[in-house]
Amino acid sequence: MAASRGGAAARSRHDADEIDAAMQIAIGASETVRGSTSPNPPVGAVILDRDGRIAGVGATQPPGGPHAEIVALEAAGRAARGGTAVVTLEPCDHQGRTGPCSRALVDAGIAEVHFAAADPNPRAAGGAGTLAEAGVFVSRGVRERDVETGPLQAWLHRERTGRPLVRWKYAASLDGRSAAADGTSQWITGPAARAVVHAQRATLDAIVVGTGTVIADDPWLTARTPEGDLAAHQPVRIVVGLRDIPEGARVLDDAAPTVLVRTHDPAEIAAALADYTDVLVEGGPRLAGAFLAAGLVDRIEAYIAPIVLGDGPAAAVSAGVTTLAHAHRFRFESAESAGPDVLLHYVRDEATDSATPAGGRDQQTSEGT
Amino acid sequence: MAASRGGAAARSRHDADEIDAAMQIAIGASETVRGSTSPNPPVGAVILDRDGRIAGVGATQPPGGPHAEIVALEAAGRAARGGTAVVTLEPCDHQGRTGPCSRALVDAGIAEVHFAAADPNPRAAGGAGTLAEAGVFVSRGVRERDVETGPLQAWLHRERTGRPLVRWKYAASLDGRSAAADGTSQWITGPAARAVVHAQRATLDAIVVGTGTVIADDPWLTARTPEGDLAAHQPVRIVVGLRDIPEGARVLDDAAPTVLVRTHDPAEIAAALADYTDVLVEGGPRLAGAFLAAGLVDRIEAYIAPIVLGDGPAAAVSAGVTTLAHAHRFRFESAESAGPDVLLHYVRDEATDSATPAGGRDQQTSEGT
Ligand SMILES: NC(=O)c1ccc[n+]([C@@H]2O[C@H](COP(=O)([O-])OP(=O)(O)OC[C@H]3O[C@@H](n4cnc5c(N)ncnc54)[C@H](OP(=O)(O)O)[C@@H]3O)[C@@H](O)[C@H]2O)c1
Ligand SMILES: NC(=O)c1ccc[n+]([C@@H]2O[C@H](COP(=O)([O-])OP(=O)(O)OC[C@H]3O[C@@H](n4cnc5c(N)ncnc54)[C@H](OP(=O)(O)O)[C@@H]3O)[C@@H](O)[C@H]2O)c1
Repeated sequence: MAASRGGAAARSRHDADEIDAAMQIAIGASETVRGSTSPNPPVGAVILDRDGRIAGVGATQPPGGPHAEIVALEAAGRAARGGTAVVTLEPCDHQGRTGPCSRALVDAGIAEVHFAAADPNPRAAGGAGTLAEAGVFVSRGVRERDVETGPLQAWLHRERTGRPLVRWKYAASLDGRSAAADGTSQWITGPAARAVVHAQRATLDAIVVGTGTVIADDPWLTARTPEGDLAAHQPVRIVVGLRDIPEGARVLDDAAPTVLVRTHDPAEIAAALADYTDVLVEGGPRLAGAFLAAGLVDRIEAYIAPIVLGDGPAAAVSAGVTTLAHAHRFRFESAESAGPDVLLHYVRDEATDSATPAGGRDQQTSEGT
Repeated sequence: MAASRGGAAARSRHDADEIDAAMQIAIGASETVRGSTSPNPPVGAVILDRDGRIAGVGATQPPGGPHAEIVALEAAGRAARGGTAVVTLEPCDHQGRTGPCSRALVDAGIAEVHFAAADPNPRAAGGAGTLAEAGVFVSRGVRERDVETGPLQAWLHRERTGRPLVRWKYAASLDGRSAAADGTSQWITGPAARAVVHAQRATLDAIVVGTGTVIADDPWLTARTPEGDLAAHQPVRIVVGLRDIPEGARVLDDAAPTVLVRTHDPAEIAAALADYTDVLVEGGPRLAGAFLAAGLVDRIEAYIAPIVLGDGPAAAVSAGVTTLAHAHRFRFESAESAGPDVLLHYVRDEATDSATPAGGRDQQTSEGT
């Protein structure tokens, strides 16, 4: 889509490849700040000078700091005049703690703005209109899907629903077991899958586990680099349950903040997560079951190991389902390999999930096996 | 690979695309006879006339009947003279119930033979040599992988190991459950997955279930077309266990033969399967566990539904594994979608499966979670 008003040029001076390449860099920049910008979105921006060369790259700074466009404009300096801004999200139009980015882009003399996703927030939206009225060429939609399923997924979910994006991640055998009969569960999945998990943790606002997992496994729940160092950004660790956790538990170390939520009530658990944007439930099976039963799981990230155990606890228990017609339903999105393991991505199936009013799946009985 | 001896032409008169297209037709022909040729391989053959036109197509007939090459030669008649045979398997060289195909091809005046897979059976192999010595141009390897992982997979496995290829197929929720808490299990997976299963059944020698599945579900275990009619070929139905099954059980109908194997002893179960080539274990969980524990599962076909149940029986129980290091290990091969479900293919991991002498997987403890 190309919007163009108020005397803006009718066509971009750039070819599509040039904008696409810049957008990929903007997406990469936004990935580096995921988890550290909440409640603001992790945005990336690139400024191209008049000749299409990269003059500045920026990403959203922690709350109170400048937005991505401002960081990129500052990096570009005078080279921004007559140049082009490529941004993962529609530039904001409202006077928050920082001034509106739409104004800053106009003031810097930017001639074109290309953004991926529109801002669903009515307070901030309108940036595209303001820019066009000021004579800036504006285009939307470059790599929109990549951004909406990638760095801005959780933030967009929050803007649209008012709730954090809650992902349930688990590792299990082919027969759905998260541990063997004797309790051994390290490591069901291989090093490649664990590296993916650690990289993801560094992009999150919060990780949630039950007291059972802390007591059984004593995990750190920190994000670490492949070399074993702590990543720059650490999510808040949230432990849910009434039991005391051991005094020397690793989740109580100084690597990241830890919040103890002493309840079983799903409403109270949801309230404790309300201020976060991107939340990962890492188990164990009872807490996962409670989240599922309460309809709190938006996405599932299933790491399936190429093993069969035949005994041992399941990945989810007591999810409030007694018959197949009331199963919690999701929609398969994609599969990827992680070393010998398979990572399956699912999203809540609004149409048929029994936790939503639409309810359940019809059971058929007319067909034979 | 091109083998050429005894005065055969050094090069094919065909271009690669022509042979590839003919091989696809030969593979298609072989698919139509899967399951009905054991102990012979389901082979497909195409005869091209001198001008490269399809003169005849054939597939292996039931035991005692002609091999694919002979069927195709008969269909081609005089057009075979100076023509080309495209066959999924190296033509046999031994005098079985039918004469050697290598001889028949030479006698028919075939000038070129292109085959996909070599015959690992020393009694039958040598066809390529005989043909080349008679002045026929011989080439091997066209679509070899398609044939080896497709129509000839089970037969090649049997030739190489002396045992049937045993596939364990199951349908489960994301948390590995094959039924809900109240026992409802129809249908965990959707119509597309069930259509795949029915199409597969029509290609098998035998389907195996435990008495538990017959008593709980009363399945037919027949192969049916999408319209609900019985497929032309039906696998033998094998029911394992000591209990009597109900007199009116559907598996006892006339649609296909049914064998009752009254034992729990894996050696006796294996003996009952010894004469088959392509065997599918369709469950339930206890029989699957017994097969896994005995090291009898060569491949896994896991149909994963996009649902979470949280309660209900697991897809496999009592597989003889008490600790993670002794898990039954497989190797992920590929994933495909079947409607809303995902079908994951695994093959036995000879290097690390604990049921093989190489044994187990090391447990690491140095890394944190
Ligand atoms: N494979 C994986 O992906 C994975 C991930 C994590 C853990 N695990 C394994 O899971 C095992 C621990 O299982 P688990 O089920 O005990 O762990 P869990 O789910 O982490 O913790 C269970 C605890 O959660 C608390 N809780 C809070 N709200 C609840 C509610 N609404 N309903 C029920 N419980 C609620 C309860 O704590 P209180 O009793 O204190 O009130 C309960 O005992 C360990 O062996 C661990 O290795 C596996
Ligand atoms: N989702 C799926 O893919 C799928 C597929 C099939 C079945 N199912 C479900 O599975 C449930 C039935 O479970 P199930 O475990 O009872 O069924 P099963 O595994 O089909 O049958 C169990 C029976 O197998 C016999 N058996 C033979 N050798 C054995 C051995 N070495 N060890 C143990 N048992 C041996 C025993 O029969 P005796 O007691 O007679 O000696 C045992 O009771 C049903 O609800 C059905 O819907 C699901």
